[in-house]
Amino acid sequence: MKIRKNSIKYLTPMKNERIDDLHRNGYRIIQDPDKFCFGMDAVLLSGFAKVKKGEHVLDLGTGTGIIPILLEAKTEGAYFEGLEIQSDCVDLARRSVELNEIAGKISIRQGDIKDAASIYEANSFHVATANPPYMNSGGGLINADAPRAIARHELLCSLEDVIRAACWVLKPKGRFYMVHRPHRLADIFYHMRRLGMEPKTFRLVQPYIDKEPNMVLVEGVKNGNPMIKALPVLVVYQKDGSYTEEIQRIYYGDGKYVE
Amino acid sequence: MKIRKNSIKYLTPMKNERIDDLHRNGYRIIQDPDKFCFGMDAVLLSGFAKVKKGEHVLDLGTGTGIIPILLEAKTEGAYFEGLEIQSDCVDLARRSVELNEIAGKISIRQGDIKDAASIYEANSFHVATANPPYMNSGGGLINADAPRAIARHELLCSLEDVIRAACWVLKPKGRFYMVHRPHRLADIFYHMRRLGMEPKTFRLVQPYIDKEPNMVLVEGVKNGNPMIKALPVLVVYQKDGSYTEEIQRIYYGDGKYVE
Repeated sequence: MKIRKNSIKYLTPMKNERIDDLHRNGYRIIQDPDKFCFGMDAVLLSGFAKVKKGEHVLDLGTGTGIIPILLEAKTEGAYFEGLEIQSDCVDLARRSVELNEIAGKISIRQGDIKDAASIYEANSFHVATANPPYMNSGGGLINADAPRAIARHELLCSLEDVIRAACWVLKPKGRFYMVHRPHRLADIFYHMRRLGMEPKTFRLVQPYIDKEPNMVLVEGVKNGNPMIKALPVLVVYQKDGSYTEEIQRIYYGDGKYVE
Repeated sequence: MKIRKNSIKYLTPMKNERIDDLHRNGYRIIQDPDKFCFGMDAVLLSGFAKVKKGEHVLDLGTGTGIIPILLEAKTEGAYFEGLEIQSDCVDLARRSVELNEIAGKISIRQGDIKDAASIYEANSFHVATANPPYMNSGGGLINADAPRAIARHELLCSLEDVIRAACWVLKPKGRFYMVHRPHRLADIFYHMRRLGMEPKTFRLVQPYIDKEPNMVLVEGVKNGNPMIKALPVLVVYQKDGSYTEEIQRIYYGDGKYVE
């Protein structure tokens, strides 16, 4: 007997998989700890990205689909698509979309970011997002084909590939939101401008008020004018190790984002 | 009778001038509030710039000479030079150097940053510093020749001119320290890399922990490798409006910087 995609069996976690609560709309996500689980970076990106009512959003390298799922919950965007190269992740992401019964608003497509110009028409999205690999590829990975390595290291796509793809799919003045590591910030600003997108807003994220930033959120605008806005640093933990108010709001606050 | 340069009369403030205490080595500076007085940006730059024992330092657009005077007090650098286009400022800076009896270690030279390549030999300084005009020139200033306007607006030199001059005078791997406004950070990173200098460290400065950054300190290294370090945000005021400990240390702490 053929198993229907949205049947219980299809949605039940398999092998090492687990289902996590997203604290938004009752949404959940299927993850495999042996492969890759989303981290705070994805949650912060979903709080940083501005998606207006009716907009179309493309997430480049969507992994388990965490970004489109969170953005569908948090914003009034009309349509969300996740592009992902790894078939394992595509399968996980599609099952999470089914699990949350939002297949009408979110599509997961298997494909390579480097092929964005052949997969998508130019100027076809209002917003693009990405939580790309942070590390330069630079040789010597033992499991270079493991999903975790692919998510973390620039093995299958470089920072430039991601920015180039975003520039292609975005409409003029379309917004691109990315989370990355601060040590790549000069690369990010340089390549954005070089490839036709202006860095417009950024926010450093520090674990504690006196510790070095370990994440950065960046907004680029296609064909934007030069002039970037630095937001106040986002501090994750209070001195006692509990989340700051702002982080709690990003994780657990509700209400859709409205411009 | 000819008045000697270092005579009392020459060093006594004239007209609207005043002499301010720098809280370092007993040093003082002669300023003219009608023209331009140094601000916190200059002090923060002097705390951010690393000058090692025996190094030679050039300050591009030195104004009243505040940067070389503070760096001479704070570091073990061997020689400091300030380049300044405005004759009024050159005169003030030279008198401050005499007043502090450090003419053997600091020289003030009148000249245009844009002529750096004819004034200086290439690769001749270990360190360069600049507190350049923050604002794009963009038309319409009433007093475009006033010292204050020249110090604040890119009337006589652009950001690119300053970075180009630093690249010229610095030895390979020489360091350039600049204070600027965060809204120009993409410009700074982009032009540094384009002109042969890699942004290596930066630090945002926020007036309060929850307020947007209004200054940024940037270190560039000539012919450096890509990879930038973000330092923890520098907060100026505590909630009660008093200086934070770190700012107090930068203003009033003593001891020379030693690598």
